[in-house]
Amino acid sequence: MVRKLKKSPLAPERFPKLAPLAGVELFAIASGSRYQGRDDLLVMHFDVETKTAGVFTKSSMPAIPIDISRENLAQSNGCIRALVVNAGIANAFTGMRGVRAARKIMNTVACLIDCTPHQVLMASTGIIGADLEPAPICEALEQTLKKSKTEINRAGGKTEPQNWEAAARAIMTTDTFPKAATQRVAFGTQHATIHVIAKGSGMIAPDMATMLCFMVTDAAIPTRILQELISTANIVSLNAVSVDGDMSTSDMFLGFATAKMRLPRLRRASDPRLIPFREGLTAALQDIAQQIAADGEGAQKLITVDVTGAANDVEAHHIARAIVTSPLVKTAVAGADPNWGRIVMAIGKSGARAMRDRLKISIGGYLVARSGRPVTNYRKEPIAEHMRGQHVVIAVDVGALDGKGRGCARVWGCDLTHAYVTINADYRN
Amino acid sequence: MVRKLKKSPLAPERFPKLAPLAGVELFAIASGSRYQGRDDLLVMHFDVETKTAGVFTKSSMPAIPIDISRENLAQSNGCIRALVVNAGIANAFTGMRGVRAARKIMNTVACLIDCTPHQVLMASTGIIGADLEPAPICEALEQTLKKSKTEINRAGGKTEPQNWEAAARAIMTTDTFPKAATQRVAFGTQHATIHVIAKGSGMIAPDMATMLCFMVTDAAIPTRILQELISTANIVSLNAVSVDGDMSTSDMFLGFATAKMRLPRLRRASDPRLIPFREGLTAALQDIAQQIAADGEGAQKLITVDVTGAANDVEAHHIARAIVTSPLVKTAVAGADPNWGRIVMAIGKSGARAMRDRLKISIGGYLVARSGRPVTNYRKEPIAEHMRGQHVVIAVDVGALDGKGRGCARVWGCDLTHAYVTINADYRN
Repeated sequence: MVRKLKKSPLAPERFPKLAPLAGVELFAIASGSRYQGRDDLLVMHFDVETKTAGVFTKSSMPAIPIDISRENLAQSNGCIRALVVNAGIANAFTGMRGVRAARKIMNTVACLIDCTPHQVLMASTGIIGADLEPAPICEALEQTLKKSKTEINRAGGKTEPQNWEAAARAIMTTDTFPKAATQRVAFGTQHATIHVIAKGSGMIAPDMATMLCFMVTDAAIPTRILQELISTANIVSLNAVSVDGDMSTSDMFLGFATAKMRLPRLRRASDPRLIPFREGLTAALQDIAQQIAADGEGAQKLITVDVTGAANDVEAHHIARAIVTSPLVKTAVAGADPNWGRIVMAIGKSGARAMRDRLKISIGGYLVARSGRPVTNYRKEPIAEHMRGQHVVIAVDVGALDGKGRGCARVWGCDLTHAYVTINADYRN
Repeated sequence: MVRKLKKSPLAPERFPKLAPLAGVELFAIASGSRYQGRDDLLVMHFDVETKTAGVFTKSSMPAIPIDISRENLAQSNGCIRALVVNAGIANAFTGMRGVRAARKIMNTVACLIDCTPHQVLMASTGIIGADLEPAPICEALEQTLKKSKTEINRAGGKTEPQNWEAAARAIMTTDTFPKAATQRVAFGTQHATIHVIAKGSGMIAPDMATMLCFMVTDAAIPTRILQELISTANIVSLNAVSVDGDMSTSDMFLGFATAKMRLPRLRRASDPRLIPFREGLTAALQDIAQQIAADGEGAQKLITVDVTGAANDVEAHHIARAIVTSPLVKTAVAGADPNWGRIVMAIGKSGARAMRDRLKISIGGYLVARSGRPVTNYRKEPIAEHMRGQHVVIAVDVGALDGKGRGCARVWGCDLTHAYVTINADYRN
């Protein structure tokens, strides 16, 4: 059932170096629930002043942990003390039995770290419709967290340095590499750290592609402002990735601010002192977004689509998404064909305003179409060269509002290859 | 460039028998424009009393013939005398040069059959961005139509019986079989005939999938009523087919009523005397819709998705479309796996109202999930048997509005196979 996939050719060379971050302990645990011989459970234990915010899947069929975490986040007013993540079983479409399993695990964590059950969040990723057995997970949690507690008490401090790579690996399902990004950002004369780990979007049936993303910073940011910062950054990063246009029942992006780095009081997200933080957060999440696209099932090429000249940013996003999710565009990229006719088609079907006779399309920086016509006698060789590479860049200016449109968007995706079909159709053979 | 594709395993056994229909002449012509050794040009010449209505692509990047035909249909008030269709070159994204080419061809037809240029419609299908050379097409038209005119004048009648199969073949691009359907419907004691021919959705790069569909009836139906009848029937037939969610720049569905069969005056589309016609039209178009899905590129299985219990019909349609276009559902069907978790995901992402804990899913008539949980101990063998067949039927009741939703929809699609990727990515190898 659980197959080993070959590492994506687009994987980064190495896992980034993540410095220790004050206010959080990480536990990567092998519960043996679904995977053998690897960690499949992550606990993040946060210090008492930590503030938390989150963005959840918009699916009308959310997994159980989505329902409960959304509720806990609201009830605790963002004062979350722990996050528990299991990989292999999504606990989605499992009814009351799934609710009981999730609550049992979350209560176990709450007992072990001594907080209320509302201060625990949970994320699950894996098979839909399979029951999550709480017993082996609770047992593994008790063994690890109790032991850790004893050792902390005895030694008066943490026993092990944070291992972010182990944490990123523990949440993988069919990802072919662990995903992380980091940024160091200025607050006046001080510096805060932003660490992000994520999983997605390797898929292998009957698993679901799920994007889980967890950001931790040591900066002291109030819940309301943190929520606004992560919601805004999410739009131009995680929300701008598409592997196949399918949305998971379990997608979750959480941001934790451990407040170990004190800041002068922040009153609003638009505070100019937050500009470097905003930029760093966006950069880290865009890095993650590209890693997720690069690990799309069967991906051989990363695609970046830039749209300009749309009526507004939302319409630009629709157009960019229509291009990057079009099976015809994706297969053309897989075949290294600069088939801009399919790009025209995708823009046309997006439903967003665009003017055919003002449309400009370039591939790899080379203009191939403008003013409603192909560019005559463009040089084919440099474009073909670009298409053969691992990163294909498509830019379109859609000339909306008689050329006065200023809406723009960037999204990332990947090509559609035989390997995608193999992974998602042939798994029973 | 032009490859021969293997006939779809889902093709009907034979072309249906279409009886002669009064008021239209068909000309299938080999112009040699793109394809060699086959007809690639169709002219339909209608009698003077013919009324015409049409539905055109909603793409914001329409092909030139879409622009001109839409305009001509409006200007002539539905009094169309001829339709000319060329296969191989879409005349899309070709700017003013494309406009001149289309007008030249349409004017040639108008001269040859002696009508105004506004009384001619044109449909083109094939490569986007390639220029359509009018000369060989005009020459072929002149040779065929002039000769025919002479012969008609001499013999005082048609020289050849209508060959609907030749007409359906002349408009094919990468279709693997010609598509047609016919119905005989009652009007009181009389009977009218409905013939439909269509092409789509075989695709081979750099061609675009395009759906062209032409209905001809001998019934005397006024333009306005005809428009309402075809628009309504279109929603539950041609608009309910999806091969890969990509929409062509050239999609066109035209209805022609030659008025050779006189009817008592009709004042509105809701006239009860039109009920058999409505039903027959819908049946013929749904037959065509399934043929188009069955000829989806690389299709090995036809998928029918039935949605009930939605908040309204429009939302039901969105849900059905989300299921039938989901790459994960399509690959699962290709792999003969009753992976209902992916169906749950697709419903969840559709954006339409649905209640997880009331959801029912059945595959091939066997219930696999209900009330937010998998059905325990359902018999796997009959479902597996159904999934191995050529026609997979998925039915979901989404329990919207606390189970009070009555919206329903049916759509057709096909599986996503290695052959799709081969056709659309590997064509340069």
